[in-house]
Amino acid sequence: MYNRILIANRGEIALRIVRACKEMGVESVAVFSEADRDSAHVRYADDAYCIGPSRSADSYLRIENIISAAEVSGAEAIHPGYGFLAENAYFNEVCRSSEFDFIGPSPEAMTQLGDKATARAVAIAANVPVVPGSDGLLADEAHAIESAQTIGYPVLIKATAGGGGKGMRVAPNEQSLRTALQQAQQEAQAAFGNAGVYLEKFIDRPRHVEVQVIADNHGNVCHLFERDCSAQRRHQKLIEESPSPLLSSKTRTAICEAAARLVRNADYQNAGTVEFIVDQDDNFYFIEVNARIQVEHPVTEMVTGIDLIQTQIRVAAGVPLPFQQEDIRLNGVSMECRINAENPDKNFQPCPGHIKQMFIPGGLGIRFDSHAHAGYTVPPFYDSMIGKLIVHKPTREEAIACMIRGLEELRVEGIATTASFQIRVLKDPAFVAGTIDTKWVERELLCS
Amino acid sequence: MYNRILIANRGEIALRIVRACKEMGVESVAVFSEADRDSAHVRYADDAYCIGPSRSADSYLRIENIISAAEVSGAEAIHPGYGFLAENAYFNEVCRSSEFDFIGPSPEAMTQLGDKATARAVAIAANVPVVPGSDGLLADEAHAIESAQTIGYPVLIKATAGGGGKGMRVAPNEQSLRTALQQAQQEAQAAFGNAGVYLEKFIDRPRHVEVQVIADNHGNVCHLFERDCSAQRRHQKLIEESPSPLLSSKTRTAICEAAARLVRNADYQNAGTVEFIVDQDDNFYFIEVNARIQVEHPVTEMVTGIDLIQTQIRVAAGVPLPFQQEDIRLNGVSMECRINAENPDKNFQPCPGHIKQMFIPGGLGIRFDSHAHAGYTVPPFYDSMIGKLIVHKPTREEAIACMIRGLEELRVEGIATTASFQIRVLKDPAFVAGTIDTKWVERELLCS
Repeated sequence: MYNRILIANRGEIALRIVRACKEMGVESVAVFSEADRDSAHVRYADDAYCIGPSRSADSYLRIENIISAAEVSGAEAIHPGYGFLAENAYFNEVCRSSEFDFIGPSPEAMTQLGDKATARAVAIAANVPVVPGSDGLLADEAHAIESAQTIGYPVLIKATAGGGGKGMRVAPNEQSLRTALQQAQQEAQAAFGNAGVYLEKFIDRPRHVEVQVIADNHGNVCHLFERDCSAQRRHQKLIEESPSPLLSSKTRTAICEAAARLVRNADYQNAGTVEFIVDQDDNFYFIEVNARIQVEHPVTEMVTGIDLIQTQIRVAAGVPLPFQQEDIRLNGVSMECRINAENPDKNFQPCPGHIKQMFIPGGLGIRFDSHAHAGYTVPPFYDSMIGKLIVHKPTREEAIACMIRGLEELRVEGIATTASFQIRVLKDPAFVAGTIDTKWVERELLCS
Repeated sequence: MYNRILIANRGEIALRIVRACKEMGVESVAVFSEADRDSAHVRYADDAYCIGPSRSADSYLRIENIISAAEVSGAEAIHPGYGFLAENAYFNEVCRSSEFDFIGPSPEAMTQLGDKATARAVAIAANVPVVPGSDGLLADEAHAIESAQTIGYPVLIKATAGGGGKGMRVAPNEQSLRTALQQAQQEAQAAFGNAGVYLEKFIDRPRHVEVQVIADNHGNVCHLFERDCSAQRRHQKLIEESPSPLLSSKTRTAICEAAARLVRNADYQNAGTVEFIVDQDDNFYFIEVNARIQVEHPVTEMVTGIDLIQTQIRVAAGVPLPFQQEDIRLNGVSMECRINAENPDKNFQPCPGHIKQMFIPGGLGIRFDSHAHAGYTVPPFYDSMIGKLIVHKPTREEAIACMIRGLEELRVEGIATTASFQIRVLKDPAFVAGTIDTKWVERELLCS
């Protein structure tokens, strides 16, 4: 096992890793920007190094400064957390060439899965369903119609140079495909100077389901079941839960096994997440792999009883996984709310600033992961998450009640947070029924 | 189910009950003394009434004020918490005659088990082992020798009017019994003006093991396994855990079944704790019943997954227990440290006062039950407990590591706490081995 680990991150995830190290008897080394000098992750680490000015580009993204801190501190391994350099294959490579263990997958696995096209090829090779699409750009109308017949209606026309919905059209049948194709091409030409379009199967009201996997250096791969993160606002997850409320047990088995298969085929090691969309008929399609620990990893820890950060560290040090697939059982229901310093009444505008008073929820069923406290100032330089409220209860109904209780108990004076909006989501009958999709929040709660 | 419950308590247990009510959709009514006007249990309750000046005798112990508050608030039931009036059979009786459900046992069961002599008789009738003793006071030396032969050496001579160790002698054999008897009688006469003494089996290095029980109004009685509270200082529990680290599985079954049998025989309803001492040979002896919820109930909640406060409320409302004995399983290990505002460097002198800054431990495995926060002033009028740090981990080794991490993370600026002393206990090889007894802390750590 390592004696010292450097944590190339800040905020709650850096503190989360410090905590794991302490419980394992491993020393932790924090790095910090000038804005984070007094942050909890610095205070509780065994050693700490300033790596530059407040802006991320000048500190948390400065590979040379982080490597220098690792060298000076005598760390043997580097945990990247999430965000910043966590999925930067070059950083991963530099760690290796500087003889630090990178606590995550190899640079090769990261590169292979980081590219959408090669990741899709890996999925197909592993017999994991992907969203059906045309074979490249559409040559002409006949090609479009032929492709659509193979894919099955409704289809989505997407601009190859596209973004922001421009050049995008849904066609429910052949007739509308003819019209929509022309419109999409014209729109794409106008918007991007490139009329190239392709087809994908249109998934109506998709759910976001992701599978946590962990693999060691000895050929063992396990999945830790799934998380449902369909409660999103503009692709930002608001509430995550495990298990997914609507997945049939048959689909759960199939999606989890697919994820493990993909990871095994990619020769992937350490923790990772395989993301899927699931349609209203429980068909699932591979989207991408997140080659890092995720913000929402705690819900998986609660329902499986497995400490993912400790397991990441052990696996990186070459220790075999201490469990096999059949040892991993789902126990109860867990949910997480990301508490962001954003004002839901002002279009979720970030509101960094000084926290005058804070009351942190506690009691049975509550876990709170946060570096924030009364007297802490949320700096304006980084993402706005100030903590994660996690609950664990025997049933989903009790988990929702506990989460509402916890959010109502959370008091953060001086800055606005997303808690009030999350309470609204949790009290909505559609959320309670577990039937929401990834566009539901925007469609039903923010449509005004 | 009730619509409104009044909580006849303060501090962390009042907040604990508010939290349970919120999750059940039951309204909670707080009462408070003038010193507690701004306390979290008042802030988070749905309604709150001042019941008098700061001293307990003028507020939390004023039965008429509490009953008035219950009447005015429209509460249907009263939860007494622990301490204050929780085991006051007269208050229990007044609640009943005022037509409020008392969330606890009946006044009759409370009276029967509140008296040590009748409780001992109940235990004997239920075939539960009690500490063997002489049948009443010793008439003379011959009676003492005869009794000691029946009980078995070593025996303890105790003064009937005694206390504080006066008139108390251990006799390992008949010869020393003759000498010690005279000394004890003389000492008792001098100290209390009463030379009456009796014999009890002397239990060397006893462990404190207690069994959590819960019974409904429909004849169902379950135990929720045991807690070990051997880490004590002057009969004040410092660290509690479940399961007990050294109990054999056979003794665990026997002691838990004995507790359930006693409770069933006593026609006891709601939650209660049956306390035992366990000797170095795993023999256990009934001591007393605590006819209330206890400070250390969370460790049982963590290892069984059962919310004891919610269950208490349901049982009081006449709902049958939702589980049977065979449904209850131990899962992992839980420990609790009572965080007291006391200075371990000054003989645990209470140190109420203003909390300037506070950092509350969080993360995987941690539960923190507290009404305290930065800016809170611990009043000098009540007991010194400001919170309870609870951990839950797969193994005892991990639970200890997590507790040390949590205690080191806890920061309370402005007042001293017991946390540093508890870290010392947790790091001691004897505690780690689980071999300590109830006198170990005083003998080994405070003997200077």
